[in-house]
Amino acid sequence: MLGLIMNRQLTITSIMEHARKFHGDAEVVSVTADQPLHRYTYREAFARSARLANALARLGILQGERIGTLAWNDYRHLEVYFATSCAGFVCHTINPRLFPEQIEYIVEHAEDRWLFVDPAFVPLLEALKHRLGCVEGFVILGPAGAAAKTTLRNAVDYETLIAGEPDTFDWPELDENSACAMCYTSGTTGNPKGVVYSHRALVLHTYACLMPDVMSLSAREVVMPVVPMFHVNAWSIPYGAAAVGAKLVFPGPKMGDGETLQRLIEGEGVTVTAGVPTVWLALLTHLDRTGKQVPSLRRVIVGGSACPRTIMEEFEHEHGVHVHHAWGMTEMSPMGTFNSPSADFDTLSSEEQWAQRLRVGRPVYGVEVKIVDAAGKELPWDGVSFGALKVRGPWICAEYFRIGKGDAHDDEGWFETGDVATIDRRGYVAITDRTKDVIKSGGEWISSIDLENTAVAHPAVAEAAVIGAYHPRWDERPLLCVVLHPGEQLTREEMLAWFEGKVAKWWVPDDVVFVDGLPHTATGKLSKKDLRERMKDYRFP
Amino acid sequence: MLGLIMNRQLTITSIMEHARKFHGDAEVVSVTADQPLHRYTYREAFARSARLANALARLGILQGERIGTLAWNDYRHLEVYFATSCAGFVCHTINPRLFPEQIEYIVEHAEDRWLFVDPAFVPLLEALKHRLGCVEGFVILGPAGAAAKTTLRNAVDYETLIAGEPDTFDWPELDENSACAMCYTSGTTGNPKGVVYSHRALVLHTYACLMPDVMSLSAREVVMPVVPMFHVNAWSIPYGAAAVGAKLVFPGPKMGDGETLQRLIEGEGVTVTAGVPTVWLALLTHLDRTGKQVPSLRRVIVGGSACPRTIMEEFEHEHGVHVHHAWGMTEMSPMGTFNSPSADFDTLSSEEQWAQRLRVGRPVYGVEVKIVDAAGKELPWDGVSFGALKVRGPWICAEYFRIGKGDAHDDEGWFETGDVATIDRRGYVAITDRTKDVIKSGGEWISSIDLENTAVAHPAVAEAAVIGAYHPRWDERPLLCVVLHPGEQLTREEMLAWFEGKVAKWWVPDDVVFVDGLPHTATGKLSKKDLRERMKDYRFP
Repeated sequence: MLGLIMNRQLTITSIMEHARKFHGDAEVVSVTADQPLHRYTYREAFARSARLANALARLGILQGERIGTLAWNDYRHLEVYFATSCAGFVCHTINPRLFPEQIEYIVEHAEDRWLFVDPAFVPLLEALKHRLGCVEGFVILGPAGAAAKTTLRNAVDYETLIAGEPDTFDWPELDENSACAMCYTSGTTGNPKGVVYSHRALVLHTYACLMPDVMSLSAREVVMPVVPMFHVNAWSIPYGAAAVGAKLVFPGPKMGDGETLQRLIEGEGVTVTAGVPTVWLALLTHLDRTGKQVPSLRRVIVGGSACPRTIMEEFEHEHGVHVHHAWGMTEMSPMGTFNSPSADFDTLSSEEQWAQRLRVGRPVYGVEVKIVDAAGKELPWDGVSFGALKVRGPWICAEYFRIGKGDAHDDEGWFETGDVATIDRRGYVAITDRTKDVIKSGGEWISSIDLENTAVAHPAVAEAAVIGAYHPRWDERPLLCVVLHPGEQLTREEMLAWFEGKVAKWWVPDDVVFVDGLPHTATGKLSKKDLRERMKDYRFP
Repeated sequence: MLGLIMNRQLTITSIMEHARKFHGDAEVVSVTADQPLHRYTYREAFARSARLANALARLGILQGERIGTLAWNDYRHLEVYFATSCAGFVCHTINPRLFPEQIEYIVEHAEDRWLFVDPAFVPLLEALKHRLGCVEGFVILGPAGAAAKTTLRNAVDYETLIAGEPDTFDWPELDENSACAMCYTSGTTGNPKGVVYSHRALVLHTYACLMPDVMSLSAREVVMPVVPMFHVNAWSIPYGAAAVGAKLVFPGPKMGDGETLQRLIEGEGVTVTAGVPTVWLALLTHLDRTGKQVPSLRRVIVGGSACPRTIMEEFEHEHGVHVHHAWGMTEMSPMGTFNSPSADFDTLSSEEQWAQRLRVGRPVYGVEVKIVDAAGKELPWDGVSFGALKVRGPWICAEYFRIGKGDAHDDEGWFETGDVATIDRRGYVAITDRTKDVIKSGGEWISSIDLENTAVAHPAVAEAAVIGAYHPRWDERPLLCVVLHPGEQLTREEMLAWFEGKVAKWWVPDDVVFVDGLPHTATGKLSKKDLRERMKDYRFP
C-alpha cells in the first residue's frame, strides 16, 4: 500500500523559489575583485540568475550539460550556482588550487561546455587554453570590459553576457534524481574523480545541515562561508542560507585575510561562519595584533582538518565564540558528522567535555556510520577500538563519474571513507588516521597520526611524519621522520624516550630519521605517498 | 544525466535506528492511566517496539495492513507508532473524541485488523463491538491483567502481548513511498476522509519541522507534545524528538490538566511544548491561582486555532515564554506555516510586531502557498487581499483513501485548504475564514470570522456567529446571530452601531438575530452548517 501524497520533487529550484518569495529582502554581501563591498538582495540575485539561465539557453546548453566555474565566493558565483542547477544544467565547481594538469584533466573529463572564471584565474587558464578542447567559451566574472585583455578564445564578461536578458526564466520541472552539481576529489593518488550530486541529495543535505544541532541557520542569522564555493558547494551554506533567508556574506578573494574577515564580521553582523583551521588562525592573529573584536559572532564551524584546542580556547575565552567540529568529504555532499554538545554535556568534567569537543561529532540524521576491522567485522563503539570508517546515506556518492563504483564501495553499498576512526559510546566519531597511512603491525593497526601528534609535541620538533616501513617479522613497523626547529638538536634515543608513557609500548616507532624537510601536496598537505616513495629502500637497523 | 548518489530510502525506520544508536540514553517520560510517572530511554522504547513488531508478525499482520489506535500520548503509544510503521504496517490513529458512529465508520473504512486501546476508551468500543467486523482483536494499553474485565472479544493486554517476544526485529527495507500512517479528517460535512502518509512524507516533514525557525528541536531540548498523538502524529513531534535525541515528556490522559502540565514542566525541565489554545489557558489559570512557575519553559507552539493575544502576553510577560503560532491540516502532515520573527522584526513597532505574531506565520521550506479569488486568479501578497488558500508540497495529501482526489485538488495539483487567507509582503499568512463560511456579497467576499470577532468584543455578547443569508440583490448578505451574557440586554440597532468604524461599511451585517444558544460539533467547534440549516427560512426584513 502506497502513501497518498503529492509527488513533488526535491530540487534546488524549490530552494530558490522559496527564498525569492519569502526572503526576497534578505541581503547578500560580497567582496569581489572589482568591488570592495557589493550588496543586494536574494530577489535581485535570482532575477540575475534568471538572466543567466536565459543566456545559457541562448548559447544552446542542454539539460545535463556541464558548466564549469573557477571562482571565489561572491554573488556572481551564487548566481551561477542557482542558474545552472535550476535550469537543468550541472554546476561543475573546479578547485583553482589544483595543479594546472589536474584542472585540465577535470575540465576535459567533465566535458565542460563553458567556463566561468574569476579574473584572478584567467592567467592559469591562458596557459591551458589550447588544450581545453571541449570548452566553447569563457565567461570572465567581472564588469563589462573584464574580458577585453584575455587571450582566451571566445571570452565574454559576465555582465555583458546577461545584460540583455529578461529577469524571469521558465524554470523546468526537474526530476529530483537528475544531476545538479559536480565536484572532483583532489585525491592524493591517481586522477581526480568526479562526484555528481543530484537535486534530491543536496535538498536533503540542506535540510539536515539546517538542524539546530548542525549548522542551525535561520532568518535572523548572518552567515559567512569562508569555505570555498569551489569545494563541495561551500558545505551547502549557499543553499541552506537561501532556504531559511539568512543573510549571506561572501569574502571573495579575501578568504585567508584576517583583516577582511574581521571587517566583514563587525560590519555585517556575522553570527556564524565556517572554514578550515588556518583561516581562523589568521583571524585570531589579526584580532590579537589589533585588539579588534568580533562582537556579533557566536559560532565557528571548523572542518577540513582537526581544529587545535588552542584555537577553540582562544575563540571561546577571548571572544565568546563557540567552535564546532564537523567532518565530511566531497563524496558526502559533504556533511557526515557535526559536533554539538550531548544532552549530558553539562554533567561532564572539563576534560571529558574537551575530549568530546575535539571529536568530529555525531552523524547528522540521514548518515549511517560503522567502523570495521581488517576482516570487515564491526567494531564496538568504546572510544578506543579503531577501524575503517564506512558511511551510507541519501547524499553519499554511489559511484564516480565515468568510473563506476571502483573499490570505494563495499558489497552492501557502504562507502569506504578511507579514514580510520573511533566512535565513543555516545556516537561521537574521532578520525585517527587515513586507512592507507595506518601502520599494519602483525595484524594490528597503529595510528600514524597519534604518533605524529606525540612527536610534534616535543619542543625541538617542527614537523613529523610516521610511515609504515617493511619489517621481516611484523610486516610493517612505524618509522618516524622528523624535521627539527632550526638550531635544535635531538638524538634518536631522546626522541624515542619521549614516547614512553604517552603511547602503548608496542606503538613506539622502531627508528627515527632526521630530515631537512618533508614532501607536501599542491594543497599543502603532508604527502605520505611521496615520503613512502622516498623511503622505499629504508631498512630497520 | 542523473546524479550518482546512493539510493537510500527515507523511512521512519531510519529515524528509529538513528535515535537508537546516537540518542539511546535520552529519556521518554510518561503519565499513563496505570503509572503516575513512567520513565525509560529511547533504547528501551525501541527494544519494546521490536517486541511488538514480533508480536504483530506472529498475529499474521501483512505489509500495508492497518493497525488502529485509540490512545493518549504515552510511551506505549510511541512504541506502537514505531513498531507498526517500521515493520511495514500502517499506524492508523483514531480520534476518540469523535462521535461513536464516526469511529465505527473510520475503523471499518480503514479495515483496521487490530485496535490498540487505552483503558479509558474501552467502554466506548464495548458499545460498538458487534459492529467492528473487520477487527480481529483488541490490545488494551495497560499492564498485565488490564484486559480481564472487558467484554471486547479477543482482548489482550499490551504487556502480555509483547512479554515473550525478542528485543530485536528484522526491520524490512521499505520503499519510501509506502504507507506508514493514516489519520482521518473530522470534516464538518459528510464522512471523515482518510489521509495516508508515506514514509517519505513524514521524514521530509520531520526535517522541515526541526529547522531553527520551526520547532527547533535538538538533543538538549525537552519537548512535551500536548497535541494528541491521535491527531496528525502529534504534529510530528515523536519523530522529530527521536531524530535529534530530545527528551520526550508525555502527559497521557492529563492533557488538559494545568496542574499536571506544570508539574511535568518543572519536574522534567520541559523547554518547549505544543498544543491548542485551551490547553494553555488551563495552564496559565493554574499558574495564576497557585503562583507556581514554569522556569525551564522557553517556547510554546500553538496551533489548531488562533491564540488570543492575551494568552501570548501573559506567557511572555509573566513567564518569559515565547509563543509561536503554527498552522496546518491533517492533509498537510500537518505543518504548513510557522511563525518565527522576520529578519527585520526588531525594527518594527510594537503594534507591527504583534500584527506579525498574530498571523500563522510563513510556509516552512517545502510548502508552497497561493491565494486566489473566485475566478482562480492569484491575489497579491499585500496583507489585505483575501482569497482561497491553496498549498502544494511533498508532505501534502494527493488524494483520500478509497475516495480519490474529489474536489479538494485543482487541475494543477494544488490542494484546496478550504481556508480563506491573506498573505503580507513578507509572506506571513493570516487565516481569515473558511471558504464555505465566507459571505459572497455581489461577487465580493466578506469574512465571517472578522465580523464575529468584532461582535464578541462587545461586553454584552457571549458568543456570535455570522452566516450568509439569501439576498435578492447581492446573492448573500451577512446575518449576525448573537448569544448575550446572562442578564445582558442589547437592541438590534445598538449591536449594528457597534460595527461602525470597526469594519468596512459594506461589511456591516444586514440584520441581527438574538438566540439562546448556537449549535456545536462533537469537538466543540461552532457548527455553521447546522446554523445555516436552522436559519434556512430566514429572510431579511
